[in-house]
Amino acid sequence: MSVLRQDVSTNEWVIIATERAKRPHQFVKTRDDTPNDTETGTFCPFCPGNETAEPEVLAFRNEGPPDSPGWWVRVLRNKFAALNPNGTTAHLWEQGFFPYMEGVGVHEVIVETPEHHTSLALMTTHQVAEILFAYRLRFRELRQSKAWKAIVIFKNHGERAGTSLRHPHSQLVATPIVPHDTRLKHAVAEQHYDNRGTCLYCEILHHEMAAKIRLVDQSPSFAAFHPFASRLPFETWIMPLRHKASFGNIGDEELHDFAAILHRQLRKLHFALNDPDYNFVLHTAPLEDEDKDYYLWHLQILPRLTTIAGFELGSGIYINTALPEETAVFIRETSSV
Amino acid sequence: MSVLRQDVSTNEWVIIATERAKRPHQFVKTRDDTPNDTETGTFCPFCPGNETAEPEVLAFRNEGPPDSPGWWVRVLRNKFAALNPNGTTAHLWEQGFFPYMEGVGVHEVIVETPEHHTSLALMTTHQVAEILFAYRLRFRELRQSKAWKAIVIFKNHGERAGTSLRHPHSQLVATPIVPHDTRLKHAVAEQHYDNRGTCLYCEILHHEMAAKIRLVDQSPSFAAFHPFASRLPFETWIMPLRHKASFGNIGDEELHDFAAILHRQLRKLHFALNDPDYNFVLHTAPLEDEDKDYYLWHLQILPRLTTIAGFELGSGIYINTALPEETAVFIRETSSV
Repeated sequence: MSVLRQDVSTNEWVIIATERAKRPHQFVKTRDDTPNDTETGTFCPFCPGNETAEPEVLAFRNEGPPDSPGWWVRVLRNKFAALNPNGTTAHLWEQGFFPYMEGVGVHEVIVETPEHHTSLALMTTHQVAEILFAYRLRFRELRQSKAWKAIVIFKNHGERAGTSLRHPHSQLVATPIVPHDTRLKHAVAEQHYDNRGTCLYCEILHHEMAAKIRLVDQSPSFAAFHPFASRLPFETWIMPLRHKASFGNIGDEELHDFAAILHRQLRKLHFALNDPDYNFVLHTAPLEDEDKDYYLWHLQILPRLTTIAGFELGSGIYINTALPEETAVFIRETSSV
Repeated sequence: MSVLRQDVSTNEWVIIATERAKRPHQFVKTRDDTPNDTETGTFCPFCPGNETAEPEVLAFRNEGPPDSPGWWVRVLRNKFAALNPNGTTAHLWEQGFFPYMEGVGVHEVIVETPEHHTSLALMTTHQVAEILFAYRLRFRELRQSKAWKAIVIFKNHGERAGTSLRHPHSQLVATPIVPHDTRLKHAVAEQHYDNRGTCLYCEILHHEMAAKIRLVDQSPSFAAFHPFASRLPFETWIMPLRHKASFGNIGDEELHDFAAILHRQLRKLHFALNDPDYNFVLHTAPLEDEDKDYYLWHLQILPRLTTIAGFELGSGIYINTALPEETAVFIRETSSV
């Protein structure tokens, strides 16, 4: 069982993941400086034929029994789950002075394709839509439980973005507390809503669409732009034009449109920057705030072209060596086909 | 002139560093995946003989004129400064909806030794003390100006920690606003002080010293431990036993003792983990709060043995794969000589 420990100096939570824990000596730097890889030799637990390695939670397939080949998207429990559903939820203990709780939650892997050697950028838009449908299904299933307070869907692409398995996959984590950064974003949006009576994100969107200089894409239901205060070069935000606090409430047509714009931006980054490492994160309201008016769900693509160093870790201030107005031009001029 | 832009969705500031800005195409991933290096060929601007590359702000030397060899610690303006002293301080503008200010501040490099191929762990404790004396001198000089609200001193050691120049150096940044994370830490400490009438950090220290299990070092004036909610494997905090909000107010004897414990911990990490990449950050009170009772300056060593991935960037929750209670045993058992 992993454990959630709270840093009393910031009130931020940390997951101590004993399920994937390493012994101290396993952190000794190896000579070639390659990060530890959980991929065992050539065996890939996500490839067709290896379905029995992890039973599926959900799969899209035409025929055949569960945990057999024939699927095109497959969702599994993460074998090295950071959080686990069995345990006492949200009960705070103290170890001496220090608060902690059991590491309860859900940690799933969305295997995006049966193909080992590809990436979201190189798939079809249709396949990307199927993956987003899987996200939404899992989101809607997991939000039924009162135990989970927030759902974080994210992707690590490439070694510098933290991937340990090459087979294309994304991840979903349901947490028993609202993460600090999620709460912060909501608090800021709520404050704006109270002050001005409008959704902060809708205003951002309005101004980006009017200024146009950082805008990189537009579709019937979405816009994509490089934000004014980009933390990282080529940081990209994709926002729905229709106000909705939760990704879980997105409709079918919007989902298809979301797949198209996300796919296009990932392809442009792929072609413009030679398959850069990146993370993306889907920001959505805490589950108890899904119906409130002050938040707008959105997706952030965070290319990992630079290193997060001491100043960033110590102050929270990012030093960005690229102008979003310039990277936006570069991406607008890049073909996505 | 660089610029400070505020993300209205988090209120966090970002530095858009036009002085070191790259054109968009310079971010294209190269085949060998080596990060861009500002080191030009074999020329090192920090090596003796190359002093004219950057005029010094401070140097410890026995004889000889400024900007000549003979020094053992030398402080320079950062050639690629993220912030620059000339400009209008703390005047907020808006570009459309979006707040920004001129990138005013100070960004200095502390060249830790004339030797190119060494590191803090391999120097003498005496040399480490000299470096800390340079930190304190610069700190005391810069806090005279009302323009600077906070001073962040940090170090990037190794490629995964964000170093671009190999010659041992640390950095100092004085900011025209209090960084978000600094303010957060202070707000939490202040709240604790208001609630309980005690310094939060003194309480943390008291409990770590009583529990002993995460303690890795103790000296007349300092203690070092792996914190209960460690975000990263082998994360190490060094705290003074005597309550003091600001590093700037540390005495000579304490500084020597600080050098000894910092050096010992860096040596242990060096020997135990085979020269791991790491950052360290000196956390100290905002300059206007230096005399208040509720904060305690301290140093955090952040080894970069794992990758900060999408979940961390999206939620603020770190997943740590090591138990601080175990890494503490490992470090206690490692010799520092």
